[in-house]
Order: sequence, then C-alpha cells, then structure tokens
Amino acid sequence: MSATVSTNPWTRATENSGFLDYIDTTLRGCGQVIFMDNPLTGLLNFVAMFWGAYASGSSPAVAWGSLIATFVSTATAYALGVDLDKRKMGLYGYNGMLVGCGIPTFLAATPMMWGFLVVGAAASTVVMLAVANVFSTWKTPALTFPFVLTTWLVMLAAYAFPTLPITGLGHAALSHAPVVAHAAMGPVEVVRASLVSVAQVFFVNSPMAGFIFLVALVVESRWAAGLAFGGALIAVLCAMLFGADTGAIKDGLWGFSAVLTAVGVGCVFMNVGTKTLIYAGFATVVTVVVQAAMNVTLGTLGVPTFTFPFVLTAWLFLLAQRNFDSKTN
Amino acid sequence: MSATVSTNPWTRATENSGFLDYIDTTLRGCGQVIFMDNPLTGLLNFVAMFWGAYASGSSPAVAWGSLIATFVSTATAYALGVDLDKRKMGLYGYNGMLVGCGIPTFLAATPMMWGFLVVGAAASTVVMLAVANVFSTWKTPALTFPFVLTTWLVMLAAYAFPTLPITGLGHAALSHAPVVAHAAMGPVEVVRASLVSVAQVFFVNSPMAGFIFLVALVVESRWAAGLAFGGALIAVLCAMLFGADTGAIKDGLWGFSAVLTAVGVGCVFMNVGTKTLIYAGFATVVTVVVQAAMNVTLGTLGVPTFTFPFVLTAWLFLLAQRNFDSKTN
Amino acid sequence: MSATVSTNPWTRATENSGFLDYIDTTLRGCGQVIFMDNPLTGLLNFVAMFWGAYASGSSPAVAWGSLIATFVSTATAYALGVDLDKRKMGLYGYNGMLVGCGIPTFLAATPMMWGFLVVGAAASTVVMLAVANVFSTWKTPALTFPFVLTTWLVMLAAYAFPTLPITGLGHAALSHAPVVAHAAMGPVEVVRASLVSVAQVFFVNSPMAGFIFLVALVVESRWAAGLAFGGALIAVLCAMLFGADTGAIKDGLWGFSAVLTAVGVGCVFMNVGTKTLIYAGFATVVTVVVQAAMNVTLGTLGVPTFTFPFVLTAWLFLLAQRNFDSKTN
Repeated sequence: MSATVSTNPWTRATENSGFLDYIDTTLRGCGQVIFMDNPLTGLLNFVAMFWGAYASGSSPAVAWGSLIATFVSTATAYALGVDLDKRKMGLYGYNGMLVGCGIPTFLAATPMMWGFLVVGAAASTVVMLAVANVFSTWKTPALTFPFVLTTWLVMLAAYAFPTLPITGLGHAALSHAPVVAHAAMGPVEVVRASLVSVAQVFFVNSPMAGFIFLVALVVESRWAAGLAFGGALIAVLCAMLFGADTGAIKDGLWGFSAVLTAVGVGCVFMNVGTKTLIYAGFATVVTVVVQAAMNVTLGTLGVPTFTFPFVLTAWLFLLAQRNFDSKTN
Repeated sequence: MSATVSTNPWTRATENSGFLDYIDTTLRGCGQVIFMDNPLTGLLNFVAMFWGAYASGSSPAVAWGSLIATFVSTATAYALGVDLDKRKMGLYGYNGMLVGCGIPTFLAATPMMWGFLVVGAAASTVVMLAVANVFSTWKTPALTFPFVLTTWLVMLAAYAFPTLPITGLGHAALSHAPVVAHAAMGPVEVVRASLVSVAQVFFVNSPMAGFIFLVALVVESRWAAGLAFGGALIAVLCAMLFGADTGAIKDGLWGFSAVLTAVGVGCVFMNVGTKTLIYAGFATVVTVVVQAAMNVTLGTLGVPTFTFPFVLTAWLFLLAQRNFDSKTN
Repeated sequence: MSATVSTNPWTRATENSGFLDYIDTTLRGCGQVIFMDNPLTGLLNFVAMFWGAYASGSSPAVAWGSLIATFVSTATAYALGVDLDKRKMGLYGYNGMLVGCGIPTFLAATPMMWGFLVVGAAASTVVMLAVANVFSTWKTPALTFPFVLTTWLVMLAAYAFPTLPITGLGHAALSHAPVVAHAAMGPVEVVRASLVSVAQVFFVNSPMAGFIFLVALVVESRWAAGLAFGGALIAVLCAMLFGADTGAIKDGLWGFSAVLTAVGVGCVFMNVGTKTLIYAGFATVVTVVVQAAMNVTLGTLGVPTFTFPFVLTAWLFLLAQRNFDSKTN
C-alpha cells in the first residue's frame, strides 16, 4: 500500500514524463482494486479484463468501460487538485475502474450509458473523497464503498430513465422462503468456482481470468495471492454447506466479496500473523452470511450487492480491531 | 448565514421585546429553509406559502401547518435551552417548517394529523441537534436531513395507524423497467417547470409562488436567487434528456432538490468562484440521478424522497471538498 | 453502570476464582440487556427466561440459546483480549444474549441454527467493538444495535439458505393503508400488556416473566424498574390511541422498545430529574411512532424490527442532549 522509492527504469521514466506518470497512476488505480499499489499488477489486471472480454465471451464494453473509467476518475482527482501522495498511489482510480466494469455489465451499451459511465467515474472520485474524509475519523479505509454507492445509484436510476435500458438486472422481488437448486460439486468444480470468484471481483466470469488476476497479485504479494484464493475457497465451501444455489456458486457470485475480505483483513490492513489469520478466516465466513443477507435485501430493489458484503464486514472487523489490547496483535 | 450587527429599526425592536425576538427567530427559521438568515426572506416565504394555498388551489392546511410547525420547533429549542446564537439564526426552525408543509401534503387534515404535526415539529428540533452534533465532526451542516427523517417516520407510521388516513402517497410498488410518458416541452414550459421546481422546495405547485420565493432570495443574496433558478433549469433539462416522466417534470418534482444543491454548494457552504460554479453544476446533475435512484428506492416503501437527494449529494460534495488543496479553491 | 468496589462474599469469591469471575461476567452481560451491571439482575433475568420457556409455553430453545450465546460472546471478548474494565461490566455479553434469544424465536431448532447462533454470538462481540468505536466519537453508547444488526443479517440470510428453515417470520409484504383489528382494552388488560412488553425485551410473551424482569431491576435500581413499567404503560396507551392492532398490543409488541428508551434516556445515560423525566417521556412517545415506521419498513423485507426503534430514538435523544446548555440539565 505504500509508495516505494525505487530506481527501476519505469519509475525513472515516470519521474521524467507527465504522460507516463499519468499512465502509472492509472495502472496503480487498477491494481488498488485488489489493494496493490503496483502498476504491473494493474497492467495484468487489464490484461485479464480484455482476456475475459475477447477470449471468454463477456462483453467488450466491460473491459473498455473499466479502462475509460479508470482514466476519467484519475483525471478528476487531478482536476480537483487532491492530495498528491494518495493520488499517485492510485487511490482515486480503483473505484472508477469498478464503476466502469459494473455499469456496462448491467446496462445496454448505448451512448447514454457511456455518458453515465463517464459521469459516474468522475463522481466516484468525489464520493471517495467524502467517504475517506468520514472514515479517517476512525483511521479506517473507504474500501470499495464509493464504487458500490455510485453504481447502486446509477442502477436504481435506470429503473426511472427509459434512456438507460436494463440488460442484466434480475426482477425485483420480495423475500420468500428459499427453493434452491442444490447439486453436488466435486473438488475440481470447487477449485474452478474459487478461481471464478477471484475473477468476479472484476465482474469477469472466467477461471482463466481468475488465474491471471492471481498472477497479478503474486507480482506484489504472495500473501495477498494466497489469501485471495483461500478466501474464495472458504466462501465456496461455506456456501455449499449452507445450501446456496449451486449455479450461483459456480458463477463465483458467493466468493468475490470474501476474496476482498480475506486479503484486506488478512494482510493489507492488519499485521500478518496467526491471530490475524484466524480473525480473517472468521471475517470470511461472516462475509458469506452478509452476502446472503444483502442478496435478499437488495433483491427487493432489483440491484446487485456489488462488493458491499465485503465493505460492511471488513469495516466491522477493522473498526473492532482498534479496540484490542495492542499486545495481543 | 451569519447574524449581522445592524442598526435598522426591526433589529432594535427585537432587542427590546422578547415577543418580537421570538417572531424574528421564527421568520429566520422560515428563511433558513433556503439557507437565508433573514427575517424578510422568511416573511416573503410565508407570503408565497399562503399565496400557494389560497390563490393557486393547494391545501390551506399546508400553509397553516408550516406556520404552526415553525413556531413549535423554535419554541422547542427555547424550552431545551440550546445554543443561543444558532437558535437566533433560525437553525432550529427550518426543519420544523418543512415538517409542517410535508405532513398535511400527504395526510388528511384530522385532529390526529395536527397532533402528529406538533409532535413531529418538536421532534425535528431534537433530530436537528443530534444530526448537527454528528456532522460537526466533519464541519459539515445537517442540511434538511432532520426534516427528511422526521417526516419519513410519520409517513411510514401512517401505514400502521388507521387514525392517520393517507391522501397523497402513491402505492408502494417494486421497481420495474420504466414505461414513461415522454412528451416534448418548449422553452416557456421549461421556464415554468423551473419556477415550479423552486416552489416545490416548500411543497407548493405554482410558478407564481416560485417567483415569490426567488424574490425572497434576492432580498438577501442575488447569487442565491440566480443559483436557485439555474439549478432548477439544469435539473429540468437533465430530466428531459434522460427521458423522465414529463408530467412530473412540469410539476417541479425533478428540480426541487437540485435547487437546494445549486444554492448550498454554489454559494452558501463554499466560496463563490468559477471553480465552485463548475463543481456546483456537476453536483446539480448528480442530484438528478440521485433523485431518480431515490424515487425508485422509496417507491418500494410508498413514501416520497422529500429533499433527501439534495441532502445525500450535498453531503458528498461538501465532505469531499475538505480534501482539496486549499490553493485550488 | 459502573463497576463497584465491594466486600460482599460473591465479589471476594470472583476475585479468587477465574471460573467464578467468568460466571460473574456472563451474569452481568445478561443484566446489561436492561442496562444493569449486576450479576443478581442477570441471574433473575435467566430465571425469567427459563420460567417463560418451561412454565409459559415458549420454546426452550430460546432460553438455552440465550444462556449459550451469552457465554460465547463473553468468551469471544476474552479471546480477543479487549479492554478488561468494560468486559467485566458485561458489555460484551448483552448483545450476544439477545442474539441467542432472537435466532431460535424465528428459526427452527436444527443443528445448523445452533451453528449460526454460536457464530452470531461471537460476531456480535466484533460488531459491538466496531459500533462502540464509532459512537465513542460522540460519547454515545452502542446500545443494542450490535444485536439488532447481527440478528437482522442472520434472519435475512435464512431467506437465501434452505438449511435454515424459517418458523416465526411473517411474509414480506409491501406497505398498504392499514386495515387494523381494533378492539377495546380495559385497565387490567392495559397493565397485563405493559408487563408483557417488559418481557418482550427478552422475546418472552408472559406477564409473569415481565414481573420477574421488573424484580430483577429493583435489585439494582428502583428508578429503572419504575421507568421500565412506566415506559411500557405509555407505549401501550399511545398504541391504543393511534389505533394500532390490539392483538399486537396485548402481545407486548408495541412496548418493548419503549421500555428500553424510558430506562435508557430516563435514568441510565442522563441525570435523574424533572426535566429528564419529561424528555424521556417525549422520547417514549416518539419510540412508538418509530416502532410503527420500522414495522412497515422492515415488513417489506420480512424481518422484525427487534429493538431498533429504541436504538434509533435513544441515539437521537442522547446525541441531541449533548448540545443543551449544561445548566439546564
């Protein structure tokens, strides 16, 4: 998470070129989606996005949207003149990137959609500044809440504006006792579902893309890569145990928030160690329960949870952790 | 927003009479609905309320309710013995005034309704103190959230209490893809809809009342009046562009929150200037999107958004603004 | 609320035995449900729980669940190594106790339910630490919100997991104009409904259990006992006046949050006195309105309000109170 002083050629190049510096900041913004302040992680993430779009059948608008939105949200931070250090770490890019993935996943690729994507990406930087300001009171990060809030608002607005045709949202429905399609899953399917869960952090439904995202993590931190896969695995196994819908488990929809909880609580915002591992494991299980609760709650509005189950759970576990006896950490 | 030292006759009169001082505070409370710490603005606002009620066909209960509730919420602040400076500026009156407009707009004028109006106006002062306490942490104002929360609670309670017959609330409905009545609007209709949007800040559906509210603003600040009309205009044009329901645009329902965002962000809580104007313009566009999202969300509960789209958007833009490099403002 | 230095035999025994100290902390956790830092109050509360379960026909799983969950949430606080003083006062037990009452009241007593009860009780301690951290900014207590949030999440998750059969939740339904079964209630029925309201703080539907809970309060504070019954009485009378469903009034469902508001605002978190009594009385009336609003809101999700009406109202009234002129209190 910290900006490192380096003498490698890329760093020197960015110091001598405003354009390369902007590219570097944009790539770090993409890396920060999974907490990594590393331009190579960001580059590999974009590779996985385009691999998902062109090799595995998801919409190219999602990949292009993520690229455009990361540029726009980063540019907004430049225009507003916000804190230079945080800006260069990519902290004003990752929410925009996710807004750019989310909007084309659920709305038709019309000119109006692209307009909302640009406005939403710019707005996500304002929301990031606001949420970070509030949570700085408790020395707690904004996480992906600016993305979640911004994209919820656009999804909900699409139900009021006929110029934004909805393609990917389910029908709003009241909660009712579950009648779930429950089928057995073997070890290979469990591993596959875990890889897809990693990819779904970026709205991509592809185990190969999930693998590339893990490689992108290894570039900066093996702990992060291990926790990402481990978090996905725990979430898939819990969802199976609790009887969740098997199709959704295979699509990675029960694991993407858990991936972020495991990495965030397990090694980014707390010190690595046995006690932290147990704590992060517990947080990962709780994330699956929160995912279920949010699926039901937001299902009545006809919008997805996005990564809010991660945001809520990680906030609770990080806010709580500040009360512990410091010696026990 | 600041209490000015003045030697005009009214100020001297209020200094020599507890009764006139109380009237002055109540009038300022009415002025603060649109951020003006000016008793003449408040008086003209009341004139517009009664004009709307008796000359343009809306319910007299709305005008009388606004008057009674401003007195009650101001009196509650006296009884609780809160901070004298803020009290005299009318900061414990504007939420009550809006509670007094909102309740009779949607509930039948029974004795029980008047009881809830008085209790709600008194409670709005307690809510104001609580919300202001929380948001003082970030040096951010409570805006009209105390009114919004109090009136939401009364509206929702009306669905549980048969003694509070509902007259003006739509049926609760799940969100669904929009089928919107979309018709062309000419320049005259756009200006008319913008004036009605200004009036709808006070729950009045009348272009003439909107004009009087603008005159009331000019008394204290030409910037505020210009931004109020400009914000309404932007909102009406955006709503047309996004394909919102034409009837609702003409009724001012897409513009009233945008009016408050434009004035609040554009000249009350930030320094006037080119950059602030661009920032406030962006906030006004975002308010229209938030208005759409809140229409859909609160439609599932069968209650109006009130000015919550303004509150949410202005909070985000004001909380964000504290993070900028001060030189860039 | 403060840990008292005492020379009574029980206190000496707990100082010499880790096991008895743990029992003492668990009992205080049960007492803190109704704000009492007193192991005898906690013991009598458990007596009333089991009386309700075995003598008055409610489910034994509720009583056993409350006992197990209080132990688990207290043990979690030990494992995390949190602040010793607050832990010994039982502040990490009362939310767990309520989670342990709430889950078996609405879900079938399957092994999976007991698993969720244990996980929920442990999680409630994490949520308590997080919420207390946030609200310490305003020197305001977490109240029962950690219980409410944790149990809402489990209830909502049960709509997604077929392994958690729902037994006690109503059907999710959109709000609509009330058609309420309204019947007359005599003085004896009013007193009975008030006693049941006290018992419903602990999910018990029994006037005799309510009486035992009041006796448990008298052990520590006569003011608290008087305010608990008085708050219940005000709530029952208000609910009758507003035309609420008579069956629900008799079942204590309109009074349990008001009981906590009256005690919390009236004597625990504010100084006892005439002005505080009036303020707490007003807060109690407001709680009934908030109860109605939350019944409607959460009815669309098919989950109960739990004590959220108390939490919201007491937060507002306590956050507001810090703004008064201190001489007037």
